[in-house]
Amino acid sequence: MSLHGSMSQDTGGVLWNLKGPQEIKNLSKSQVGILCKEVRDLICQVTLSNGGHLASSLGAVELIVSLLRSFSPPEDKIIFDVGHQAYAYKILTDRRDVFKTLRQKDGIAGFPRRKESPYDAFDVGHSSTSISAALGMAKARESLGEKGHVVAVIGDGALINGLAFEGLNNVTPLGTKVIIILNDNKMSINHRVGGMAEHLAKLSASSTYQDIKQRVKKALREAQGGQKLEDLIGRWKGKIKSLLLPPNIFEEMDITYWGPFDGHDVDEMDRVFTWAKEYPESVLIHVITKKGKGYQRAEVSPTVFHGVSPSFVGREDKTEDGTLNVKTQDWSSLAASIAEEMAAKDPRVVCSTAAMKEGSKLGKFANSFPDRFFDVGIAESHLITFAAGMAAEGMIPLVFIYSTFLQRAMDQLVHDVCLPGLPVLLCVDRAGLVGEDGETHQGLLDVSWGKCIPNLTLMSPRDGEDLRFMMSEWLKSPGPALIRYPKGAVKTAKRMVAPWGRLEVIRNGRDICLAGYGSTVSTIEAAADILGSRGMDPTVLDLRFLKPLDHQGMIDVLSRHRLVVVAEEGYRLGGMGETICRLSSERGLRCRVITMGVSDRFVPHAKRQEQLEEEGLTPHGVVQMLDEISKD
Amino acid sequence: MSLHGSMSQDTGGVLWNLKGPQEIKNLSKSQVGILCKEVRDLICQVTLSNGGHLASSLGAVELIVSLLRSFSPPEDKIIFDVGHQAYAYKILTDRRDVFKTLRQKDGIAGFPRRKESPYDAFDVGHSSTSISAALGMAKARESLGEKGHVVAVIGDGALINGLAFEGLNNVTPLGTKVIIILNDNKMSINHRVGGMAEHLAKLSASSTYQDIKQRVKKALREAQGGQKLEDLIGRWKGKIKSLLLPPNIFEEMDITYWGPFDGHDVDEMDRVFTWAKEYPESVLIHVITKKGKGYQRAEVSPTVFHGVSPSFVGREDKTEDGTLNVKTQDWSSLAASIAEEMAAKDPRVVCSTAAMKEGSKLGKFANSFPDRFFDVGIAESHLITFAAGMAAEGMIPLVFIYSTFLQRAMDQLVHDVCLPGLPVLLCVDRAGLVGEDGETHQGLLDVSWGKCIPNLTLMSPRDGEDLRFMMSEWLKSPGPALIRYPKGAVKTAKRMVAPWGRLEVIRNGRDICLAGYGSTVSTIEAAADILGSRGMDPTVLDLRFLKPLDHQGMIDVLSRHRLVVVAEEGYRLGGMGETICRLSSERGLRCRVITMGVSDRFVPHAKRQEQLEEEGLTPHGVVQMLDEISKD
Repeated sequence: MSLHGSMSQDTGGVLWNLKGPQEIKNLSKSQVGILCKEVRDLICQVTLSNGGHLASSLGAVELIVSLLRSFSPPEDKIIFDVGHQAYAYKILTDRRDVFKTLRQKDGIAGFPRRKESPYDAFDVGHSSTSISAALGMAKARESLGEKGHVVAVIGDGALINGLAFEGLNNVTPLGTKVIIILNDNKMSINHRVGGMAEHLAKLSASSTYQDIKQRVKKALREAQGGQKLEDLIGRWKGKIKSLLLPPNIFEEMDITYWGPFDGHDVDEMDRVFTWAKEYPESVLIHVITKKGKGYQRAEVSPTVFHGVSPSFVGREDKTEDGTLNVKTQDWSSLAASIAEEMAAKDPRVVCSTAAMKEGSKLGKFANSFPDRFFDVGIAESHLITFAAGMAAEGMIPLVFIYSTFLQRAMDQLVHDVCLPGLPVLLCVDRAGLVGEDGETHQGLLDVSWGKCIPNLTLMSPRDGEDLRFMMSEWLKSPGPALIRYPKGAVKTAKRMVAPWGRLEVIRNGRDICLAGYGSTVSTIEAAADILGSRGMDPTVLDLRFLKPLDHQGMIDVLSRHRLVVVAEEGYRLGGMGETICRLSSERGLRCRVITMGVSDRFVPHAKRQEQLEEEGLTPHGVVQMLDEISKD
Repeated sequence: MSLHGSMSQDTGGVLWNLKGPQEIKNLSKSQVGILCKEVRDLICQVTLSNGGHLASSLGAVELIVSLLRSFSPPEDKIIFDVGHQAYAYKILTDRRDVFKTLRQKDGIAGFPRRKESPYDAFDVGHSSTSISAALGMAKARESLGEKGHVVAVIGDGALINGLAFEGLNNVTPLGTKVIIILNDNKMSINHRVGGMAEHLAKLSASSTYQDIKQRVKKALREAQGGQKLEDLIGRWKGKIKSLLLPPNIFEEMDITYWGPFDGHDVDEMDRVFTWAKEYPESVLIHVITKKGKGYQRAEVSPTVFHGVSPSFVGREDKTEDGTLNVKTQDWSSLAASIAEEMAAKDPRVVCSTAAMKEGSKLGKFANSFPDRFFDVGIAESHLITFAAGMAAEGMIPLVFIYSTFLQRAMDQLVHDVCLPGLPVLLCVDRAGLVGEDGETHQGLLDVSWGKCIPNLTLMSPRDGEDLRFMMSEWLKSPGPALIRYPKGAVKTAKRMVAPWGRLEVIRNGRDICLAGYGSTVSTIEAAADILGSRGMDPTVLDLRFLKPLDHQGMIDVLSRHRLVVVAEEGYRLGGMGETICRLSSERGLRCRVITMGVSDRFVPHAKRQEQLEEEGLTPHGVVQMLDEISKD
């Protein structure tokens, strides 16, 4: 991929005439205004066409422009937390001309990636890593005697995650200088949650602060020259903490706090950032921005416009989430509606999420059962342990979480839920390949480690009927359980389902068996049709229960076939295919087991269908693999 | 197991005459003093004989006595964070007479376990879960209309973990009442780390506080009656936050803070806890205790006495850590000394740990390279991301962590280290069965999920020579890597090792192959000797590299044998055995693969050797399994 394609846009304005980020430093105030508008236009245009994180990126345009005026990446390191707010940074560093390929196969990623550009200092995607990473980078540069600043840009939603706190707590003892910019848009994805949020709100509203702010602004304005600035810092050093603000949580962790400042005022930020560069210690700078800034519909409904998909354009008023065609039901909303039915039936059923109320389609549940719905913010570890606590005292929690984010709460699932055997059902969404969000959002590991945890029941329905059966049947005798389902549309036709714990032979053939679970069942069904047209008669199998596996059912199948193919939307390494190989080998069965799954790599952004094709997880991929085997 | 064995102690004093915890409420001041001394004596006696967490448990005796005077478990729920400080609680609830079986097979666990006693409210072992669990339990009781208090007892070391912060941050929005007792002994396992620690120290030392404390003490002393207390609370409600202390981090998260109080003064705590019960909102009570209190040698060297093993008694001055016989080298200290050699050779090598400096034997490294050693406190997620940050800017971090604690940083390993391919080596200690610490400390999952992460090299040396080879060879071309080794002694005899990335055929036989890695290699070697004495000639194989597996080497072995047994000290489900089954099956080889590993259960406390025997992971276990197979 070349990141420097030919420039196809008109050459008017500021953006399209920039030769590099260093030129931003020399722009006049009015040119900066034009630049911000042009960057916003490009973000809107590309995001509404390709899908992406619109509102956060719009809110950070001036902040990024000011960062590029004050700092000099790639020498200075700018680490964006999560990274979904960094579109302007991508455009303004070296990806303006290819920004139109955002999130497309072989195009630029939706998140910073070191391999994509030297300007991207750290690979991100999940929240709250930036402070820890910045501390590591600063410490390394200090050790190696290198120059340059290290800047972490973190949102208020990400700040409440435990990892960010662990980072903050280590700022003082490490004694290395980092600049932390708290980009406070008063939102997580939905509304931010917790004591920290209240605290930030108080900081912004403090009347003491309002008075002081004028004095500071004045001081900042005067403090532009080198010597004078140093004097000022020297003079203020002892007082600088108490001067700006009422007591706050950062100061009490011994981190200098400045703010809040207007995150859409480039002038003001330029001054503050220049000052931060000269300041001898670590500093946290609090800037207030507006999510969706400059695009009125996104300003009004930032949650709706947090992430948009291409099909979203023009129908944003029609659906609460806007990420899927309204005509097709998706897995998330079906799971949420089954949860509502369960809650209506049993007052012990509660439901919780870590800032994924919209993504998990829990809005209706929250409205129907406000006292039994908990959004804990971006705090996945707490999410699970909190659910375990509720379960320990008699409630029946359903926890909605994406597969990729569950990686943040593995230990809590193992020790707090499974060890004591508590009745918690994890509804694991986006299990498998997720498409445009790419490497950091793939849900490819949950089966590999889920199947190894004692006491955990691991389920994967192939359609809505089985999802409903598994969830409601679980409620009759609840224990630690995980149910995984993919991104996208779900089939909801009525049908009979197999009993609890048993695999289902969908089509009883001979000689060859195609086995799958979840999304791969329809793949192998279609493959079986192709094989049928060639005169073959394969068995088609839905595993359904991955742990405990239906051993007897599986042994029956293995005994009756010469070849079993196991196809799964997860890593082939460590997947169910391996477990079935073991079963066959241990029993001394003569059946050959062939496994298909995602290969041993991080799968980059592309359409989900493109990713499935690359991995051979298509009907033709299955047939082709069988053709190759038959050549052996 | 009966928890109510016959009482074998003399019946003098207070402890041995107690009929239940409720009687503690009625003890006089002098009886309380005797009780605390008797409890301490019992803890010392049993811990120095059985091994266990001595210093923390000694420090919490008065706190636990006062908790049992003020609260009424099991109706009131008391959740001990980590749980290693809860020995007095076990003794004083229903386990006095069986306390002598502490950490022994079928005896009582070293940590609270729900299945052991109704007094144990939550299963713990890893740190920082108590606040989240307490919130869940309180919310459940509120929903179900049940009465009773929920109390979380958390140490200052555990408080800095992100999970605890996520819990604190959710106290206010959940709006349910919990009582959080911060047991501040000014230590993590070693010294506590970070801005929060400084903050707590300031709170304890504040002179404003010292003045106020006298007034509060007086108020508390007066406020013993019901009505009067309520008046006082009503009157103080608005002021209560600002009255006690200078601004602090808890108040700024909108959590009422009281303290600090003397955690060895039962009278004072009785009053405060009574008050906390009546207080209408959540409150954090800060008590200061002394780790090792009452056992002079532990008071002087709390780190040495954090955890003791039976062999430790009487020779605590001879070794820094005291957990192993000085004559035998253990894996931890060998790995640490190799790290020192690497650091001496390459200035980019740094070393980090999350509060396991002693356990990982890094004291000497820290002394030799103080600028290149980082103890981040109990903050495993930050540990990994911080290392990734250092690696991104040119350092070469070695991260020392126990297998069980790595479960807290899975996501960081996947995204921050492996995705960008950064040179971080995880030295994963206590991989496999760990003995007396039991369920929550077993290192049985790392291979199952480690083998699925792209870009990660996964190694398991069988002895010191290979450990040294793997670590130093890695340094020549460093990338994301994990090296796992078990608890206990390491063989250090000089020998030639196989090349990087290749398995090693230790003994070339025929027909049957016994394969293992790490600790199981000596097991299968001994099994091969037994088989040899029967006239058989098995091949013995050390896998060494688990990812990438030496495919060609393995296929050669599979092709030459009728039967391959794979033995591993990790869960059989998802282990390397399954991967080798897949390899054999995919290649259409006729070799039968049999896997041995830990069964699908949480393995409770016992001696490591007992656990290995239970799981059949002994030479005789291997032979016995082969005998059974041959009957097929």
